[in-house]
Amino acid sequence: MKTITVSLGKRSYPICIGAGIRNSAGKFLQRFHLPRHLVIVTDTIVARLYLDDVRRSLERAGFAVFSIVIPPGESQKSLQRAGAMYTELLHHRIGRKATIVALGGGVVGDLAGFIAATYQRGVNFMQMPTTLLAQVDSSVGGKVGINHPLGKNMIGAFYQPLSVLADTEMLQSLPQRERVCGIGEVIKYGIILDKRFFEYVRKNLTNILAMEPTVVANVVARCCELKAFVVSRDEKEENMRAILNFGHTVGHALEQAGHYRSLKHGEAILLGMVAETFLASRLKMISAEDVRRIEEVVAAVPVPRSLGFSFSAAKLIETMRNDKKSVAGTVRFVLPERVGAVTLPMPVKEGAIAGALDYLEKFVKRL
Amino acid sequence: MKTITVSLGKRSYPICIGAGIRNSAGKFLQRFHLPRHLVIVTDTIVARLYLDDVRRSLERAGFAVFSIVIPPGESQKSLQRAGAMYTELLHHRIGRKATIVALGGGVVGDLAGFIAATYQRGVNFMQMPTTLLAQVDSSVGGKVGINHPLGKNMIGAFYQPLSVLADTEMLQSLPQRERVCGIGEVIKYGIILDKRFFEYVRKNLTNILAMEPTVVANVVARCCELKAFVVSRDEKEENMRAILNFGHTVGHALEQAGHYRSLKHGEAILLGMVAETFLASRLKMISAEDVRRIEEVVAAVPVPRSLGFSFSAAKLIETMRNDKKSVAGTVRFVLPERVGAVTLPMPVKEGAIAGALDYLEKFVKRL
Repeated sequence: MKTITVSLGKRSYPICIGAGIRNSAGKFLQRFHLPRHLVIVTDTIVARLYLDDVRRSLERAGFAVFSIVIPPGESQKSLQRAGAMYTELLHHRIGRKATIVALGGGVVGDLAGFIAATYQRGVNFMQMPTTLLAQVDSSVGGKVGINHPLGKNMIGAFYQPLSVLADTEMLQSLPQRERVCGIGEVIKYGIILDKRFFEYVRKNLTNILAMEPTVVANVVARCCELKAFVVSRDEKEENMRAILNFGHTVGHALEQAGHYRSLKHGEAILLGMVAETFLASRLKMISAEDVRRIEEVVAAVPVPRSLGFSFSAAKLIETMRNDKKSVAGTVRFVLPERVGAVTLPMPVKEGAIAGALDYLEKFVKRL
Repeated sequence: MKTITVSLGKRSYPICIGAGIRNSAGKFLQRFHLPRHLVIVTDTIVARLYLDDVRRSLERAGFAVFSIVIPPGESQKSLQRAGAMYTELLHHRIGRKATIVALGGGVVGDLAGFIAATYQRGVNFMQMPTTLLAQVDSSVGGKVGINHPLGKNMIGAFYQPLSVLADTEMLQSLPQRERVCGIGEVIKYGIILDKRFFEYVRKNLTNILAMEPTVVANVVARCCELKAFVVSRDEKEENMRAILNFGHTVGHALEQAGHYRSLKHGEAILLGMVAETFLASRLKMISAEDVRRIEEVVAAVPVPRSLGFSFSAAKLIETMRNDKKSVAGTVRFVLPERVGAVTLPMPVKEGAIAGALDYLEKFVKRL
């Protein structure tokens, strides 16, 4: 088992990574001297596969476990679902000393985290990410939230977990599309911070897609290290943390254009990175060689060969303007200077953005 | 103008108290080097009286002001209203660098604060309390939140403002019932922490009810000092802060029994303090002399002479059990040991609680 620490003073916490550690979740949680009541939040897919294992381990360790099982999918990150969950918690008299455990992917983590941040002014929170994307990215760093019909993650908080417990064995059951999503964020970490890691990922892409245990454990651990490094320096995205949004300005707009159905988050990020790398190359900030390397690795991942919605650059730009990363309606981008280094967010003219979106549309057709 | 500091490390903030300071709100806010966009949240009653003054002052100082005006009343502290406010903010493209200014009483402060805590993962927040209750209590300390049909303030956060600006001149326009509500919390501060202040309040009750400027300024300042003292030592109610809940265990249950209409918060707290003082006297924790002093001051305030709902001790206890201050279904009380000192929350047998509620019912009839 590997342990990585997110350093945030009194709110520092460990990320533990290992194969099969879901079965020792109870023993692990005992370290935190938590009150007895735990609430597992999970979705129907994960519940079928792993809820019994986790519950058994927790109960063996003396915890009283209550579970809330929601349908899968991004549409659950809504104010309606949050409202129903508050009601369920209150009906079952869950008090403010309880601990909410998010057992699932990014949707479950973001939603359960938002509930933990706001139920009775905040209760203990624990992450057990079950997807590659959640293990390498979304479960670490304390961003929690839900969507609004006018934009993704528009309602939320920074709320750090007490710990993250990532069982890499659970990744074996991931469908291909979920694997691809995680790889999107994995590649992002290479581009923004670590050229050597980018090369490792490029060479091991087949192994990662196959969820080869040793390689996947290395990948999860390195991404968590990189994210912990960033979050420890800038918890609330006042400066450096914004680099984690590479690929996300275009990516979020693509997700929204497809109503969060046509493209999943990680797929949209893969395509977003291509468009944003193109922007950097037009601004003569990155070498043609590095552009080629980034595009090649994205093309080697089985990303969707068609977007599944009609592509309108104007509409996508309109969405970006409303994104919370925009400042006074000006769209900003984190741009790569080379593999391993990116800029802080910078404004880009809308003509250039339109050009990058046209390029992306052609890139997808060429795949 | 008096300034009191809430000491919370990097998140410390000033409370400024003075007559007419709403008209220099703009100049005051310039100190904080905020981005241009401000959103005033207020209700229709306060808007009619003071919105123009505040807006004018802010605009003169160069701010761009957008306002959201909601109906008055506790029923606005709902997930539905919060949802509508997120939509309005997004429609008007309010970004995450904006500042939300709560101009109003406790309802506006709690609701606007919850929006500030959760809109785009948190934006700047400023309090301009307009009622006695908000100036002496609810605007200070960072508790924000909304209600759930199953309980008050069940959804919320700890989210500190950048500053509190309390214009005591605005209290002149308060209706009698609102004055009474504020006095409930004022008396509470005397009982829990400061015997001398209790005596001052007792002697000046008529002046306070008349909102006599000098007396009211003294009262607001002293309550803020006492609250700042408590909050600085225990921001998140892990121990000492719980003493602020004296009168609130019974008070919240009474409010809920009257559907937040029959009794207002401060009125319910006044009655709650009588019931909880009776509990302390039954447990032989407080002298008969001090019980009499507490009851006399409550009786001297024009509290409602009838509750306006049918009184059921069993139902009230059931509500208390579901209160978030309960631990595993056990109702706990902050009990006075004398005027000026209270205990931390302690469990009390339900038979004793029922006795105290019977006593309260008779007390109200005797008024």
